[in-house]
Amino acid sequence: MKNLWIAFILSVLTLLVSCDKSSDMKTIEASAGNNTNAFVESLLDKMTVEEKVGQMTQVTIDLILKENSTTEIDPDKLRKAIVEKKVGSILNVKGHAYSYETWRNILTSIQEVAENETPNSIPVLYGIDAIHGATYLKGSSLFPHNIGMAASRNKDLVHKSASITAFQTRSSGIPWDFDPVLGLGRQPLWSRFEETFGEDVHLVTEMGEAAITGYQEDGLKSNTAVAACMKHFLGYSVPSSGKDRTPADISDIFLKEYLLPPFKAAVENDVATVMINSGEINGVPVHASKHWLTEVLRNELGFQGVAVSDWEDVIRLHTRHRVASTPKEAVRMAVDAGLDMSMVPYDYSFYDLLVELVKEGTISEERLDESVRRILKLKSDLGLFAQPVSPAVSEEELFKPEFDTAAYTSAVESMVLTKNEGILPLNKNTEITIAGPTANAFGPLHSSWSFTWMGNDESQYSEQTKTFYEGMKEVFGEENVNCNSTNEWDDKGNYQLGNVSGSDVIILALGEPPYAEGPGVIDNLDLDERQLKLAREAMDTGKPVIAVFFTGRPRIISSIEPGLDAILLGLRPATFGGLAAANLLAGVENPSGVLPFTYPKHSGDIVHYDHKLTEEIREDIPNTYGQTGYQPQWDFGHGLSYTDFKIENLKLEEKEISTEGTLNVSVSVKNTGNVGGKKAVDVFIRDHFASITPSVKRLKAFKKVYLDPGETTILNFKISASDLAFIGQEGTPVLEPGEFDVIIGASKATFAIK
Amino acid sequence: MKNLWIAFILSVLTLLVSCDKSSDMKTIEASAGNNTNAFVESLLDKMTVEEKVGQMTQVTIDLILKENSTTEIDPDKLRKAIVEKKVGSILNVKGHAYSYETWRNILTSIQEVAENETPNSIPVLYGIDAIHGATYLKGSSLFPHNIGMAASRNKDLVHKSASITAFQTRSSGIPWDFDPVLGLGRQPLWSRFEETFGEDVHLVTEMGEAAITGYQEDGLKSNTAVAACMKHFLGYSVPSSGKDRTPADISDIFLKEYLLPPFKAAVENDVATVMINSGEINGVPVHASKHWLTEVLRNELGFQGVAVSDWEDVIRLHTRHRVASTPKEAVRMAVDAGLDMSMVPYDYSFYDLLVELVKEGTISEERLDESVRRILKLKSDLGLFAQPVSPAVSEEELFKPEFDTAAYTSAVESMVLTKNEGILPLNKNTEITIAGPTANAFGPLHSSWSFTWMGNDESQYSEQTKTFYEGMKEVFGEENVNCNSTNEWDDKGNYQLGNVSGSDVIILALGEPPYAEGPGVIDNLDLDERQLKLAREAMDTGKPVIAVFFTGRPRIISSIEPGLDAILLGLRPATFGGLAAANLLAGVENPSGVLPFTYPKHSGDIVHYDHKLTEEIREDIPNTYGQTGYQPQWDFGHGLSYTDFKIENLKLEEKEISTEGTLNVSVSVKNTGNVGGKKAVDVFIRDHFASITPSVKRLKAFKKVYLDPGETTILNFKISASDLAFIGQEGTPVLEPGEFDVIIGASKATFAIK
Repeated sequence: MKNLWIAFILSVLTLLVSCDKSSDMKTIEASAGNNTNAFVESLLDKMTVEEKVGQMTQVTIDLILKENSTTEIDPDKLRKAIVEKKVGSILNVKGHAYSYETWRNILTSIQEVAENETPNSIPVLYGIDAIHGATYLKGSSLFPHNIGMAASRNKDLVHKSASITAFQTRSSGIPWDFDPVLGLGRQPLWSRFEETFGEDVHLVTEMGEAAITGYQEDGLKSNTAVAACMKHFLGYSVPSSGKDRTPADISDIFLKEYLLPPFKAAVENDVATVMINSGEINGVPVHASKHWLTEVLRNELGFQGVAVSDWEDVIRLHTRHRVASTPKEAVRMAVDAGLDMSMVPYDYSFYDLLVELVKEGTISEERLDESVRRILKLKSDLGLFAQPVSPAVSEEELFKPEFDTAAYTSAVESMVLTKNEGILPLNKNTEITIAGPTANAFGPLHSSWSFTWMGNDESQYSEQTKTFYEGMKEVFGEENVNCNSTNEWDDKGNYQLGNVSGSDVIILALGEPPYAEGPGVIDNLDLDERQLKLAREAMDTGKPVIAVFFTGRPRIISSIEPGLDAILLGLRPATFGGLAAANLLAGVENPSGVLPFTYPKHSGDIVHYDHKLTEEIREDIPNTYGQTGYQPQWDFGHGLSYTDFKIENLKLEEKEISTEGTLNVSVSVKNTGNVGGKKAVDVFIRDHFASITPSVKRLKAFKKVYLDPGETTILNFKISASDLAFIGQEGTPVLEPGEFDVIIGASKATFAIK
Repeated sequence: MKNLWIAFILSVLTLLVSCDKSSDMKTIEASAGNNTNAFVESLLDKMTVEEKVGQMTQVTIDLILKENSTTEIDPDKLRKAIVEKKVGSILNVKGHAYSYETWRNILTSIQEVAENETPNSIPVLYGIDAIHGATYLKGSSLFPHNIGMAASRNKDLVHKSASITAFQTRSSGIPWDFDPVLGLGRQPLWSRFEETFGEDVHLVTEMGEAAITGYQEDGLKSNTAVAACMKHFLGYSVPSSGKDRTPADISDIFLKEYLLPPFKAAVENDVATVMINSGEINGVPVHASKHWLTEVLRNELGFQGVAVSDWEDVIRLHTRHRVASTPKEAVRMAVDAGLDMSMVPYDYSFYDLLVELVKEGTISEERLDESVRRILKLKSDLGLFAQPVSPAVSEEELFKPEFDTAAYTSAVESMVLTKNEGILPLNKNTEITIAGPTANAFGPLHSSWSFTWMGNDESQYSEQTKTFYEGMKEVFGEENVNCNSTNEWDDKGNYQLGNVSGSDVIILALGEPPYAEGPGVIDNLDLDERQLKLAREAMDTGKPVIAVFFTGRPRIISSIEPGLDAILLGLRPATFGGLAAANLLAGVENPSGVLPFTYPKHSGDIVHYDHKLTEEIREDIPNTYGQTGYQPQWDFGHGLSYTDFKIENLKLEEKEISTEGTLNVSVSVKNTGNVGGKKAVDVFIRDHFASITPSVKRLKAFKKVYLDPGETTILNFKISASDLAFIGQEGTPVLEPGEFDVIIGASKATFAIK
């Protein structure tokens, strides 16, 4: 009743002030205070169909830029977008990252037109892919991609990296960030594997939560926060063929058990927006699915925020997916399914067609209102009506040294030492030859969304960035490091090892070129033959050979692995990845990253750590069923250190818990070596028997701890019985009494749920 | 009412004769005539729980053989099985194929004990894997594996091969054949790919139907028929990891659209039995699933026959799948789910545990009756009560020359000429060097279930069998063919090319060793490096190089394909495969096989011909989304000939049909070349738009036709509108009006369903 009164008063007020809009709108928004809904409703009441449809339209910045310019706004084009087509959202950059000033100029220009030249002065919602740092802000330090952040097992770092990114992005005038990816990295062929937090649902859920709460810290209105965007809902990361934006065939049980939980947790953490999967699940493009967009996302998960499509996806319901027989039908389907905003992005077709659909009565204005209400509420929650562009900050504030420290620490903790035959760490006087295509380039350290879309423009990187070779020179001294790497990915010639006669050790810098989305598509998981050949040549010299990989996904290296004395994996560690790798090799830093995925040994042997027992060899008839069994190159959670940790005294406080109970687990971790180091401790649970075949183990908790030499700590974990529920045959969660093992390192203890 | 009377009279009769059982049982069965049910009911009434459980128990022949003998029955062991444990079914051979006499002796011994020493004289149901000919009958000629039979596109050959197999098997005394495989070959890593009819659901359905009606021709009582066994129900052929007997994750839509139809058609063709998938679908082992075994198999498909497990699968619900916490619970689950018979096969645990379960009341006797009724009915349908062992036939009848002709023709038509740069056919005076591991061995021509389990005992093959080298010598003359092949698969040394200086052409005999099930598991689809090296060496000589592959699945050969002048694929062509290959190379025969699967070009590029449009390159932005697109080594349906065929005048009698209508399609096929040849014509349909993303095309009909040079024929096809229905979002078939293309060769025509 009270709400109704307030709404009424606000309506009257807005009617009264409608001839002098902008400044008063701010007052109203402010005065609405806790009653955003009333403010939104009053605004909605005044909007035409065209204005509403405009709010649901998102276009790329290209449409408002001057021809032949990547940064200068064309005022006529801007007015066409904002005034004529009433566009409510813009995204992206053109070509390359923009300076802080450019961003603020662009955002200010956009918001001024919106504020002063549109009937209701609705600010524009600008969105960007700042997915591992402020990726399109010139001069910024980037963080490792999610796959590396997951390797760190350090939630605090994930949270901090998101907070820093949010601050830098918001300060640039951009309040919306299309991150984090919550898809599981279980299809290593997929080109966006590097954007995932790895293969495990618990890990992805926890890291996703850390990112979202980091982005949205202190509330959306804060000048240090951005609206996060969980993506891509749902099933994008597991395409059957491995190619980007291709169909996935997924059982209902797998969807609910593995793919849905990170999104569910994100909704519980009040994530503001969601981006929809460009692909299709079981023949149903997600954009065309009322089931996924309304029944599951809205009704089951309770998501209240804004659902935006991915790039150009609505029209593709017609052109690519072939579920809509006309472009107009594509728009109808997507809106009917529950989409709030279409990332059109190159034209106004969505706007024109949706206006038509409403005018002819196919789509109701009430349906528009549902989406526009969410969009306006988000703009209001972000405080954009009161302050369309966040206050400016100084360069010192924007690029604080502590941000670089966080990026460096993240790079260090993200790298995984998978093999060390005692050669590492290297003495600083070692004479080193470096060879291989990732040695002297920024791209392989960064890859997707790094100042450019694919991260492949070397001229765009921040000056504090170092290549691996540069990092090595800094750490080992210029006189000790020799390198003739070419970074010529497209050249068909062989990589040169050069003369290594004076070197003590050869370090191969291998891996993958930078890529994003489509250009990252591969048809073979094997490392390419040119790199394998270089490795064989290096091994043939008889010198010790160390390989450092800068890669976004596990490429098969089993043919060369036996000849390598040490292997360090750099999972797109970004700005400080080159320096971090050098310091890790030198022992200045102690490796602490552990794999967030199972590293396969053969291209036709993709099995995850949480497989079923039937994937393993039958010990009674070893050569009969499955002669290879589960034999990855390296297991999930694998990662070496320069010190030794002893995990022991695994204790369960309870031998038995109820279905509502909680298990208290403790374990001691001791640094038994000679240097300090961090240890990631993964806690797995094995269900002995279950009505859905249980995995051999499932991650249920993890922690990371630093220990000085000789130091011991006790880690405590709480595992709720409800964490051991799983999706049953009926498609709903079930918790079955029975026996379970807790597995930490080589320790195991059994308890029961009664 | 009448039935009740007959049942009553029979009951009285059987009571009266129960002291002198065997001969009278035959009379009763015979007198029951059309009333098998009454006969079965009367028998069931007399049986103890133990006898019923015994009927549901199947053991391997090992349990009744003398120690240290592979063929001699141990009378004590036989009595333990048949009399003490009341076993109703036995299967398999021990170690190797048996002679006709051995089979008849074994079967006669078994049936004599069953007839004379058990209370109700119930004959034993013997089953065997005669899956590509009478595979365990010494001296028989085997047919190509299903993958080759599917390449022939010749349903008549499939039907004939099944009829011949049925006759030989039944004449040996065995009335039950565990064939055909109805799983789709869409996972090329899977070791049983060779047992499938390929990747297309229409092709598998049609070929499966041809096989089943061949096996069961003239009714089960016929001395020339066996009970067929559709297998493996359901989902076995698409394991996620590709390894045998490992979990599959499959959407409901895919299951119903692709995997279920061949089984549905088989049930409609009165297939007598079904074997259950050893694996699990979406975490549910099929043996433990009432949904699959009862709701779908019985209630939806209406299957009335006997459902048998695969090898040792019931106990594995406990030991491997971990859905049953005890062996006893595993038995309870499987029986409760709807399993009729357990292929135990090495002990009597199933018998003992199921007796216990019934005695303690966990499983009802009524539940046993359901299964035992089906088993007894099958035995009665097969006429086993009247004639437990089929009449003997002469050796001339058993191994008729026309059977060899059928096997030879099948081998010829199964082979696929995928490449010919004009070098084939070879002149008979050509000087030939043959090299490679499949040149001079029987195993690679046959593989699984060929006289031994894996087909890898060269001593077991029939004397009419020729290796490829032997076939080549016969066709090209011993003096023209040189070969030093070793067939040393396990040797790590390189294959020898030898001195080729005097040769006009090098023929590489490559491919895969023989294998079955577990031992056929691979972790890489690439052809092994030793064979690739041999190929490179051959190409380096500068001589023309032809490759003949004997293989069960497509192994990646893209690195050597460009250097090969011709490629002939032998898809496990069996007994006459070596000779057929030689005659094809010489042009004595004209190749007519076409691929029943998409041959991939790269190990990470497994996409089927009936993919969605989103798997293809976007022509508007070629390098943006999916840079490889659909580019297989060879497409489904690809296969060359020595003549040219022109397909034209594609005509649709109707431009529009109703949802109940039928489309009449005609097309002319002309042999425009200089030699006679057979042409396989595949008819595809493309649905322009649909509510489930449509495939780019789907096979809906095919025919094979022989044409003399210059001859033209008109082929007619009927396509029902109902054939164009698909499984919709609700999981039920929908038929959507709209436009469709008919595609035959390069011709296309459009029609509409209104």
